[in-house]
Amino acid sequence: MAELKNDRFLRALLREPVDYTPVWMMRQAGRYLPEYRATRTKAGDFMGLCGNPELACEVTLQPLERYPLDAAILFSDILTIPDAMGLGLYFETGEGPKFKKPLSSTAEIEALQVINTEKQLAYVLDAVKLIRKELNGRVPLIGFSGSPWTLATYMIEGGSSRDFRKTKTLIYDQPEVAKHLLNTLADSVIDYLNAQIKAGAQAVQIFDSWGGALSYQAYREFSLAPMQRIVDGLIKEHEGRKVPIILFTKGGGLWLDAMANTGATALGVDWTVDLGTARKQVGSKVALQGNMDPAVLYASPDRIREEVAAMLASYGKGSGHVCNLGHGITPHVDPANAGAFIDAVHELSAPYHA
Amino acid sequence: MAELKNDRFLRALLREPVDYTPVWMMRQAGRYLPEYRATRTKAGDFMGLCGNPELACEVTLQPLERYPLDAAILFSDILTIPDAMGLGLYFETGEGPKFKKPLSSTAEIEALQVINTEKQLAYVLDAVKLIRKELNGRVPLIGFSGSPWTLATYMIEGGSSRDFRKTKTLIYDQPEVAKHLLNTLADSVIDYLNAQIKAGAQAVQIFDSWGGALSYQAYREFSLAPMQRIVDGLIKEHEGRKVPIILFTKGGGLWLDAMANTGATALGVDWTVDLGTARKQVGSKVALQGNMDPAVLYASPDRIREEVAAMLASYGKGSGHVCNLGHGITPHVDPANAGAFIDAVHELSAPYHA
Repeated sequence: MAELKNDRFLRALLREPVDYTPVWMMRQAGRYLPEYRATRTKAGDFMGLCGNPELACEVTLQPLERYPLDAAILFSDILTIPDAMGLGLYFETGEGPKFKKPLSSTAEIEALQVINTEKQLAYVLDAVKLIRKELNGRVPLIGFSGSPWTLATYMIEGGSSRDFRKTKTLIYDQPEVAKHLLNTLADSVIDYLNAQIKAGAQAVQIFDSWGGALSYQAYREFSLAPMQRIVDGLIKEHEGRKVPIILFTKGGGLWLDAMANTGATALGVDWTVDLGTARKQVGSKVALQGNMDPAVLYASPDRIREEVAAMLASYGKGSGHVCNLGHGITPHVDPANAGAFIDAVHELSAPYHA
Repeated sequence: MAELKNDRFLRALLREPVDYTPVWMMRQAGRYLPEYRATRTKAGDFMGLCGNPELACEVTLQPLERYPLDAAILFSDILTIPDAMGLGLYFETGEGPKFKKPLSSTAEIEALQVINTEKQLAYVLDAVKLIRKELNGRVPLIGFSGSPWTLATYMIEGGSSRDFRKTKTLIYDQPEVAKHLLNTLADSVIDYLNAQIKAGAQAVQIFDSWGGALSYQAYREFSLAPMQRIVDGLIKEHEGRKVPIILFTKGGGLWLDAMANTGATALGVDWTVDLGTARKQVGSKVALQGNMDPAVLYASPDRIREEVAAMLASYGKGSGHVCNLGHGITPHVDPANAGAFIDAVHELSAPYHA
């Protein structure tokens, strides 16, 4: 493997000194980029893109051609694991992901087996290997998975949901069945992320998109506990380097204390969080990643720069911060504005590391 | 006016001693009740129901016939003010509220006038007067309004929104125009709620449904500041009693400190908040209202009772807590389960007030 030329992202996650704050954007390979839309048209549909290692590699690298990003993230979907379990992932235009065969009984939940990534998700590992090769040490590659709770909501509701009626009925009425499902998913995520690490992922992020929909107590039992199981089960070092683990619960700003105690390396935070307050709260346990409202990218480059300045000032001096948006970049953003965000982070952050 | 027979709700909001914890449910007059669905059919559509004082009174009282609730809440919509401003509120089945003429220019924003409730929303005041008369002192009546930020999002987006693209572009690119709009709305809400109080509302709640979509800083500037203006402008005492003000920002659990400093009487909190932690945080500044996940009502009565017990234990001994759900009750809930929730609050809370 080529030596890593820019390791600021990995160093910041480990709270080691850097010369400026590294930055990447969730969903940086996405629909706001015309070159992404062109490749997606070529692929036919979204799963055609995820399932083709060459095309997945192509779109992963596209934002790095445009912007001086400090990390690449594998292009894939958070729902590959349930798809591998046979639920039949598909996408309807404008409606988000859906499953042809959602889980509809305790028997179906109990029949689920922990996945074997090498056998069932080889296309993801092929993409990781190819991206790593093509990156040629330019920046680190992030692997990822959906969190068990988040996967479970899609598997039970059959798609996205406003109130998670079926999944919440399960956790409240049949907590042991729910825990069996979540543990099966956690063990699958462990297999999946460890395989990604062995294939070349240099950090991993767990996307807990819907953990924030849970109550204070239910989050601990049904989302954080299976994520703790994952943190405990992951490879901690590979290729002679630590492999940082980032936990991102959207809407989890009230629970950073508990998240910081899992042993994760860093926590993703959304824009409802004041970074300075969060930093005081988590102390030296974890780094923080985030957290500009992606909607700021609809504003002018000057305004974006002001928001970046405020975000950096809120975190303050020293390492331990990876700049990012507080959620994925949205399709209608002007690519020039994404560039203004990234440039502002690099230009304005240097004094905080002097 | 008849003397108030059950004032536990008002006393708890003022943190005065009560013998048990009072309870009501957001959207307690709603689609989960067959009698509500029957009246709504009679009314033709949702606006036909809101706009007819007799029918609005009928549905307001329906849940009180079924359950020993400690408060009634005016049946109306949060978007009556923009409708009175001429935006043309309507409802499409399964799609939520929409406006025929959303705001599409600075000129349209600048042309908006503060409403005159007596003239423009007389049907709401007629409903308040009629409900107060029919309640005959049984429990207090809550008046309400949407928050300026929440109203603004619907007025600009034209309906509900995933990312509030237009409204957020406005606050970031034209903050002064946004503030003009929010102040016009705040002054309208002051007129509206004061008129409701004079017509008979004994407490008022401001529903900030979308404040939680804002960043830490933007919330303060664009949602909390106009709510502060409202708190400052409201009648504080009427009919010889204090008129409590409840601020409810869904998803505002990280910002309770700032909300408690507005001079509001109580804060509504959703289920992501641990009540005991929140109570320590706000101290004696405000009471708390909430916060069971409405999805718990899909579970069994025994399970509901356990969750109520946990909520009461989290708040602990003494007054200052009004039990509620953390958001509105949903259409698919079995009415018997809502009854189990209310009964559990009454039965299990007495020891905390001994």
